[in-house]
Amino acid sequence: MNEAAQHVRQHLYSKDKDDLLARMGRIEGQARGVQKMIEEDRYCPDIIQQLTALSRAVKEVSLLLLQDHIEGCVADAIQHDHGEETVKELIAVVRRVVRT
Amino acid sequence: MNEAAQHVRQHLYSKDKDDLLARMGRIEGQARGVQKMIEEDRYCPDIIQQLTALSRAVKEVSLLLLQDHIEGCVADAIQHDHGEETVKELIAVVRRVVRT
Amino acid sequence: MNEAAQHVRQHLYSKDKDDLLARMGRIEGQARGVQKMIEEDRYCPDIIQQLTALSRAVKEVSLLLLQDHIEGCVADAIQHDHGEETVKELIAVVRRVVRT
Amino acid sequence: MNEAAQHVRQHLYSKDKDDLLARMGRIEGQARGVQKMIEEDRYCPDIIQQLTALSRAVKEVSLLLLQDHIEGCVADAIQHDHGEETVKELIAVVRRVVRT
Repeated sequence: MNEAAQHVRQHLYSKDKDDLLARMGRIEGQARGVQKMIEEDRYCPDIIQQLTALSRAVKEVSLLLLQDHIEGCVADAIQHDHGEETVKELIAVVRRVVRT
Repeated sequence: MNEAAQHVRQHLYSKDKDDLLARMGRIEGQARGVQKMIEEDRYCPDIIQQLTALSRAVKEVSLLLLQDHIEGCVADAIQHDHGEETVKELIAVVRRVVRT
Repeated sequence: MNEAAQHVRQHLYSKDKDDLLARMGRIEGQARGVQKMIEEDRYCPDIIQQLTALSRAVKEVSLLLLQDHIEGCVADAIQHDHGEETVKELIAVVRRVVRT
Repeated sequence: MNEAAQHVRQHLYSKDKDDLLARMGRIEGQARGVQKMIEEDRYCPDIIQQLTALSRAVKEVSLLLLQDHIEGCVADAIQHDHGEETVKELIAVVRRVVRT
């Protein structure tokens, strides 16, 4: 990756950085909350409900990052060098998110 | 929920409790790791890869809890009072996990 | 599987049989509709929208069958012989649906 | 959509058209196969296994179309007019596939 691309890539989600960090902080808190529920022998379906909320929050962060990645890095690569490699990588990333 | 059911429910995942707590501890660590990656402006696809690993780990905990719930609480309810309510609740829980 | 279990199993989703057949008939029609869209070179996002509708319909049939299976076969097995094997199988089925 | 864009869009998955049609034909056959299983009162978990295979096949077609869409239409739009609308639409499509 050349210096220019590196520069772009380092800043592609900067506009959402605070939001993303806040979301991950909440997810970390949710993970701690589930640990507490398990320690307190709480009812399984109630714990599972918290876990599905946690999963949804994680998926939302993945989608936000994916959006920033497409708008930033992928668009940039396509404009500069047709972006074949970046598009191939994007599709692999989408596959991974879809299959989770 | 009567006292007997309460008793059963409090112990239904006790055999996996340490494992579940260890898994949630690792998930909490993964959430912190992703925060660090965002702070360091790491490359989006690399962060998304960590998030999909985190999601898979969360799903695995849900499935383990679901298994303990079926083997414990659901089986117990079916044996004692046909368990209509518990089965209805189980199906709602499965739907939630499937739809995440 | 003994004769009695076989008997129960053969009838466990009979109450929903017409509904299930109608749903699968619609899904078959949706699959044909997507083929027609591809033949007509329709716009990708429009085709993908039809495919996600098709997937949701398939998941709904899986969940209905799962519900009938739990209410019928699994409950029956638990009442008659504690149903360890059936519960183990159920969990494998849930895992498969969750992972799709 | 102008005529040039229309032209591009009509051909974006032409290279995979036969493959896509063959896949959808097989999916249609799988849907018919499941109907037959239901008619024959086959065992629920066996039917669900066929449904998860069908779902995976549908997801694979969505991912193939998504790939062709990104390589064709999205890349084209980004190169010609920065493609803001097309990227926005792409993200909506990815969300839909991820959430199925």
